[in-house]
Amino acid sequence: MNKSIIRYIMGRVLQFEGLFMLLPAIVAAIHRENSGFVFLGVGLGSALAGTLLVIRKPKSTVFYAREGFVTVSLSWIVLSLIGALPFVITGFIPNYIDAVFETVSGFTTTGASILSDVEALDYSTQFWRCFTHWVGGMGVLVFIMAVLPLSGSHNLHLMRAESPGPEVGKLVPKIKDTAKILYGIYLGLSLLLVVLYVINGMSLYEAFIYSFSTMGTGGFANKNASLGYYSDTIQVITIVFMFLCGINFNVYFLAMKGRVKEIFKMEEVKLYILAVVLGTGIITYQIADRYTDLFHAVKDAAFQIVAVVSTTGFSTADFVAWPMLSKAIIVLVMVTGGCAGATCGGFKLSRIIVLAKTLKKEVMHLTHPRSVHKIRMNGAPVHEETSKSVVSFLVCYVLFAFVSFLLVAANNLDFETSLTSVLTMIGNVGPGLGQVGPTGNFAIFNSFSKVVLIFDMLAGRLELFPLLVLFNFGTWKKS
Amino acid sequence: MNKSIIRYIMGRVLQFEGLFMLLPAIVAAIHRENSGFVFLGVGLGSALAGTLLVIRKPKSTVFYAREGFVTVSLSWIVLSLIGALPFVITGFIPNYIDAVFETVSGFTTTGASILSDVEALDYSTQFWRCFTHWVGGMGVLVFIMAVLPLSGSHNLHLMRAESPGPEVGKLVPKIKDTAKILYGIYLGLSLLLVVLYVINGMSLYEAFIYSFSTMGTGGFANKNASLGYYSDTIQVITIVFMFLCGINFNVYFLAMKGRVKEIFKMEEVKLYILAVVLGTGIITYQIADRYTDLFHAVKDAAFQIVAVVSTTGFSTADFVAWPMLSKAIIVLVMVTGGCAGATCGGFKLSRIIVLAKTLKKEVMHLTHPRSVHKIRMNGAPVHEETSKSVVSFLVCYVLFAFVSFLLVAANNLDFETSLTSVLTMIGNVGPGLGQVGPTGNFAIFNSFSKVVLIFDMLAGRLELFPLLVLFNFGTWKKS
Repeated sequence: MNKSIIRYIMGRVLQFEGLFMLLPAIVAAIHRENSGFVFLGVGLGSALAGTLLVIRKPKSTVFYAREGFVTVSLSWIVLSLIGALPFVITGFIPNYIDAVFETVSGFTTTGASILSDVEALDYSTQFWRCFTHWVGGMGVLVFIMAVLPLSGSHNLHLMRAESPGPEVGKLVPKIKDTAKILYGIYLGLSLLLVVLYVINGMSLYEAFIYSFSTMGTGGFANKNASLGYYSDTIQVITIVFMFLCGINFNVYFLAMKGRVKEIFKMEEVKLYILAVVLGTGIITYQIADRYTDLFHAVKDAAFQIVAVVSTTGFSTADFVAWPMLSKAIIVLVMVTGGCAGATCGGFKLSRIIVLAKTLKKEVMHLTHPRSVHKIRMNGAPVHEETSKSVVSFLVCYVLFAFVSFLLVAANNLDFETSLTSVLTMIGNVGPGLGQVGPTGNFAIFNSFSKVVLIFDMLAGRLELFPLLVLFNFGTWKKS
Repeated sequence: MNKSIIRYIMGRVLQFEGLFMLLPAIVAAIHRENSGFVFLGVGLGSALAGTLLVIRKPKSTVFYAREGFVTVSLSWIVLSLIGALPFVITGFIPNYIDAVFETVSGFTTTGASILSDVEALDYSTQFWRCFTHWVGGMGVLVFIMAVLPLSGSHNLHLMRAESPGPEVGKLVPKIKDTAKILYGIYLGLSLLLVVLYVINGMSLYEAFIYSFSTMGTGGFANKNASLGYYSDTIQVITIVFMFLCGINFNVYFLAMKGRVKEIFKMEEVKLYILAVVLGTGIITYQIADRYTDLFHAVKDAAFQIVAVVSTTGFSTADFVAWPMLSKAIIVLVMVTGGCAGATCGGFKLSRIIVLAKTLKKEVMHLTHPRSVHKIRMNGAPVHEETSKSVVSFLVCYVLFAFVSFLLVAANNLDFETSLTSVLTMIGNVGPGLGQVGPTGNFAIFNSFSKVVLIFDMLAGRLELFPLLVLFNFGTWKKS
């Protein structure tokens, strides 16, 4: 284990966290809020600590997958532990575990809150809360990679460890350039959304924070009614952008390059569209009689299915009150999530496609043992290693969900709440069913459960393995 | 596909079903019940139909895994469709779908009932209901194999398709002899249990039907209060025998041969014991304050954990009213089930051990990519094929559970009931949580849901793949 390079990258992460906190400080200056000093202070402290760590250059640049996993897990944990401080110091969230919950929920783009009244936050604190979504969505280390004039073997391993999905697609030969392109697209779409929001009546401030939440597929809002507070037009715009952020960002790169044919080959995108259309259809059918006009039924059905499949978690309707089949569909897409290579969480549709094809291959093998079957996706063969890692991911996901469910069950809430809170945390969605639905919040859990759920959110965002590697004793043994 | 041999074996199955129905007919004769004529009639019809199918010898004896899967699935479906007729004709269960549900629940040793008053059945019908547990527990085709003077390549494939667990352990070189030994042990233990029940005050009739239910890990009872009706002694005896039936039967064979050392190497058995002890401990801790003495708390905790992990599903306490952690543990062991090579259902602990080791191997591989790791179980290396098939089984299990959950959700019952009913059906346990707990029953579902649940029970008992192969279009294409 090359600890010196991990120390060095962690230092960079801390410096950037300090930099990030300048933004809420500026917001505070505009709105003349005292919280600004808190953000300045914590940011300065973080930047200083980071600088101390990067003064000494790393002894060696050796960097393997292992170092990638450890760096990414540690970075996310430290980012959250420091990012939570302003909430405590400003007094908006006095309990540190609650503050960490809120911050992890932010960075992991989960959007679940322990606040019963989100409207009580001031401008700058609310801004910081939503900005963590934007940073977490595309990834902190990917961001640093895109911005800093560094290059080296560690880029690939960091990107692999931080980016969601079974495979990291290099858009261009250099990982660093890939990171730049991805962040470019992300920034461009985010600004476009800000403009659209402002045109349709949002203040510039709100346009920014909702753009952060939407683009990162987070779900934090500055209104207790979430998107339900806003006009139909703004809700429809949000549906479109949540939908776009659940799609593999490679699609936008290919679109920019005019390679439209390749887009239509992407099975994952087709399945994503199918899930949204089918889900909206069935839910609309089940809830239509509760509305006076069809438009609003379709809009709410589409909003919730897209909000959950993209793992954003905004709400315009309380789906806890829907019929059971509609709720089951919500739980299903809560677990699956959207496409790999997007900002969304969840199991990822591409993995489900690989699993389904693996299963089909197995049945074919049972019936015709001598024939040879190969798995193909998007027209190309699926690497044996990829298929194996997807399967391990499922094993890990199921075991992880079960253990978390047992631990949270000790809190003695009802079955529906206990189970769906774990699923929505690992999926980085936000709301669950029962007491943690769109109108509920996570303050109902005791501290132990909150720690478990914090761990679930991190594990979900980092796709389990980085944390397993971090906490695996063997990782730290000398080989 | 060699259809002629499938036809031939199906014929044998029908003949045996006719033979089986002689038993309730005899019970009817003793108790002077008219139902006896129904069993005689249906049994005779079944035997005749079977004889028509076996008159022509099969054209070819070619028999592969494919034929094994198809034969086993078809046999179980036909057995259930015919086995349900007496319930309808006697009028005890007038609706045919309900009757099929009850019969499939019997043969698959699930023990879930659509009857709200099981005490209304007459002796012979109750006998038939419980006897299906006994036949289904060790397997119908395994029984035929042990009894008929036939031998051939089909024995291995039939045994593989019908026996639960990732691997079929041949105790002795010949599969046929293995089947005989297994049924010998099964019969011996069953008779021992009958004797113990009678000594402790049960009537001979009840001793038999409870022995069938316990040994098959089924769960049907002739009392609405299930085992809660009987004395503590009888309950404790039942705990012991349910426990024994969740253990790999190879253990008893090894014990008979004095190969005790090998028993202590079996990791699955150790995990099984650990699960029971830990589960009993935690549940006792949680429910102790509801009892006046510790003995009854421990007894009820042990009874329910053993009843569920062995997938029997008897009850002495209504665990729906227990604290959430205890319920979560019940759900956990509902999914895992007991050991492979036993009469119990569920995912099987040996598969979980293989999965955990596969996952560990993957994490080791991530941290030390160049080192080679092999999975070992019970001191021997695990075949790559076995590990692959276990993983496919998990994939199939999860997909299957999710699809079933969606379909049952359309029934618009609550979340807890919808989800746990599917889990308890696939696990062949019996009771679930919510409205399908120990005091509930499955009459609350509509016909569509019942059909889905029937399918789940069969899929669970046959471990999914046989049904997938049967309904896979490719199976029937000429290769």
